[in-house]
Amino acid sequence: MSQDFKQAALDYHEFPRPGKISVELSTAAETSRDLSLAYSPGVAEPVREIAKDPDAAYRYTAKGNLVAVISNGSAILGLGDLGPLASKPVMEGKALLFKRFANIDSIDIEVDAESPQAFIDTVARIAETFGGINLEDIKAPECFEIERVLIERCNIPVFHDDQHGTAIVTAAGMINALEIAGKKLDEAQIVCLGAGAAASACMKLLINMGAKVENIFMIDRKGVIHSGREDLTPEKAAFATETEKRTLEDAITDADVFVGLSGPDLLSPENLLKMADNPIVFACANPDPEIKPDLARATRSDVIMATGRSDYPNQVNNVLGFPFIFRGALDIRASAINEEMKAAAVRALADLAKQPVTDEVLNAYGLQELSFGREYILPKATDSRLLGAISYAVAKAAIDSGVARLPMPENYPL
Amino acid sequence: MSQDFKQAALDYHEFPRPGKISVELSTAAETSRDLSLAYSPGVAEPVREIAKDPDAAYRYTAKGNLVAVISNGSAILGLGDLGPLASKPVMEGKALLFKRFANIDSIDIEVDAESPQAFIDTVARIAETFGGINLEDIKAPECFEIERVLIERCNIPVFHDDQHGTAIVTAAGMINALEIAGKKLDEAQIVCLGAGAAASACMKLLINMGAKVENIFMIDRKGVIHSGREDLTPEKAAFATETEKRTLEDAITDADVFVGLSGPDLLSPENLLKMADNPIVFACANPDPEIKPDLARATRSDVIMATGRSDYPNQVNNVLGFPFIFRGALDIRASAINEEMKAAAVRALADLAKQPVTDEVLNAYGLQELSFGREYILPKATDSRLLGAISYAVAKAAIDSGVARLPMPENYPL
Repeated sequence: MSQDFKQAALDYHEFPRPGKISVELSTAAETSRDLSLAYSPGVAEPVREIAKDPDAAYRYTAKGNLVAVISNGSAILGLGDLGPLASKPVMEGKALLFKRFANIDSIDIEVDAESPQAFIDTVARIAETFGGINLEDIKAPECFEIERVLIERCNIPVFHDDQHGTAIVTAAGMINALEIAGKKLDEAQIVCLGAGAAASACMKLLINMGAKVENIFMIDRKGVIHSGREDLTPEKAAFATETEKRTLEDAITDADVFVGLSGPDLLSPENLLKMADNPIVFACANPDPEIKPDLARATRSDVIMATGRSDYPNQVNNVLGFPFIFRGALDIRASAINEEMKAAAVRALADLAKQPVTDEVLNAYGLQELSFGREYILPKATDSRLLGAISYAVAKAAIDSGVARLPMPENYPL
Repeated sequence: MSQDFKQAALDYHEFPRPGKISVELSTAAETSRDLSLAYSPGVAEPVREIAKDPDAAYRYTAKGNLVAVISNGSAILGLGDLGPLASKPVMEGKALLFKRFANIDSIDIEVDAESPQAFIDTVARIAETFGGINLEDIKAPECFEIERVLIERCNIPVFHDDQHGTAIVTAAGMINALEIAGKKLDEAQIVCLGAGAAASACMKLLINMGAKVENIFMIDRKGVIHSGREDLTPEKAAFATETEKRTLEDAITDADVFVGLSGPDLLSPENLLKMADNPIVFACANPDPEIKPDLARATRSDVIMATGRSDYPNQVNNVLGFPFIFRGALDIRASAINEEMKAAAVRALADLAKQPVTDEVLNAYGLQELSFGREYILPKATDSRLLGAISYAVAKAAIDSGVARLPMPENYPL
């Protein structure tokens, strides 16, 4: 980042007032009658209704459209464990994205907990306040247990976006990339460089959608995760394969797919050249990918490339997922975001990239033309059809899989 | 409440959308450049600044203007222990009042905790998120310990409004009522009917401002709190006096002041007649006072009367206090709301009632005239001078007493 950009980022956060979100009145509160309805004595009526029937909270309070973005700051972006307070700008940023893309009220909560159990207890105790909980920037392996227990303890959606949001958007791009490459998910040889929370979630979702675990080579700092290793966490052990391959170089030979969730420049041109025809390279390390798109293309013209960056084609960007997934889940009051809903989001996202691009999108990017192909495997974040397409697919999957507590709203998507 | 009013209250909470508050963007988030500043990669800059210096959170996030309204729903208004979720409309209502009266961003948090310690731990762990914490509707005696420990553990203001907000507004009205009655606080015989959290806080504050503990008779369900009783909590024991008086009837004889924080119609005309000349009656039970103002006036024309109701003169209304007290505390970044700041709020509030009433206030109430006297001992909630007068007094007291972390802002009050 340039010094100018850094200063612009600080100025953006400081002015016109500190931070990025505010709480506002959503109703009239001017006259003394307004105030007598909003507070004492009128407020006693919705209190009594909710005491009789907890679901009345969705009718008389902001709960049903309110998502908490909760972190302990233990894995902030690419910056590491800087603690809860330092994570606040990121969490406010996520809240901003929820509002901007899906009109969801969202507030950040930073939790300073001495243990994963203390974090879990804290979140579970405040969960009733909200309609959903988005966990964010919590380090592995604690994030797995934290999410698992919170899903059990809460009757609202709890979703660790770093895992599942990343996985959903990656899987959608992968389905389209494989189609373009003329390959099948259940036959694809996949190398995953990185074995953190996002990597695990991506590979799990690909397996749920048809990939074969025996075709996946996950690589951590010590090399390929194989069945002979005795240093594996349960999450990593799920990906241990019987193989003689030990290094990235071993694994990448003839691979169809490379998914990078690791660090800058870790995929060399030499290794890229070892991959099969029409290699699919998702180099998602941020801000610097595992191989730069220009270098990859100069190395092989048949590469199908995606990154986490907005300044190259095919951005794997979580904002394509989480706002709309929560929108759909909230609108039919899902008790959870289950595998069916995630798979539906993947398919809806992949499908949308195959629809003709709208003028809105072309204008936003100053493009004359954009059509499904190597340079366009995922919708653009500015595509206003995302809201309807994904929220509808997620809501329908929730209803079909039995976790919705409301029927499909009339004329949905709104 | 009439059926019409009850329905209006429910409709008010349901439409135009459920609840009373929303979260909105406070900055531009349209273009992809905006988003690159608000979230990745730009957001890394304020994260780094806060990691270096926690105070930078006040510069780059919404923290400094954000107050959490936190409850466990164990003492909701006059309705009792209905649990955290049922308290949500009240807490949202309080958040609405913070915004409406002092432009403070405020969000409700309902805590479902199995013990006071669990409640304390939960609030302490999320406290960094906020610039201040307003505790609300937590039952006695747990509320005392909860507030005491949270004040110790948090470096932001923690304020149980049911105690201190009520006490501040009551004390301000009392000072003015005593002046009108030609009496002195340090000589006044005071009867306090009710011995809950608000009653304790009111009497403590009056003592801090000059009342004599030996002149106060506090009465709970078992009668006068005296030194011979062995059933007293530590909070009640602080008010035990050496006395032969045992009943309200005993205590009220020749009393100068009656403060009611109990229930409807508990002060009979007979007992009112036993009070000294120019008796001061604060009948604050809501919605039905300890004696109806019309009845009190018909019984004695020299009574100086206040209630919790907006439809009679002299409303003891917490909204005269908490928005402006927090405004002042936030603006100089106080680490706490201490006794000096509370006393300053009392004096500023009492003083404002002696200033000539503005046309704004007269118009709001459809009055031709209103001046300091028996019918006007406290400012009206619609008086826009409250914000400046009280926030300035509180900020100055914080600075003078050494709990402010910023100097007085230029041109304050804003």
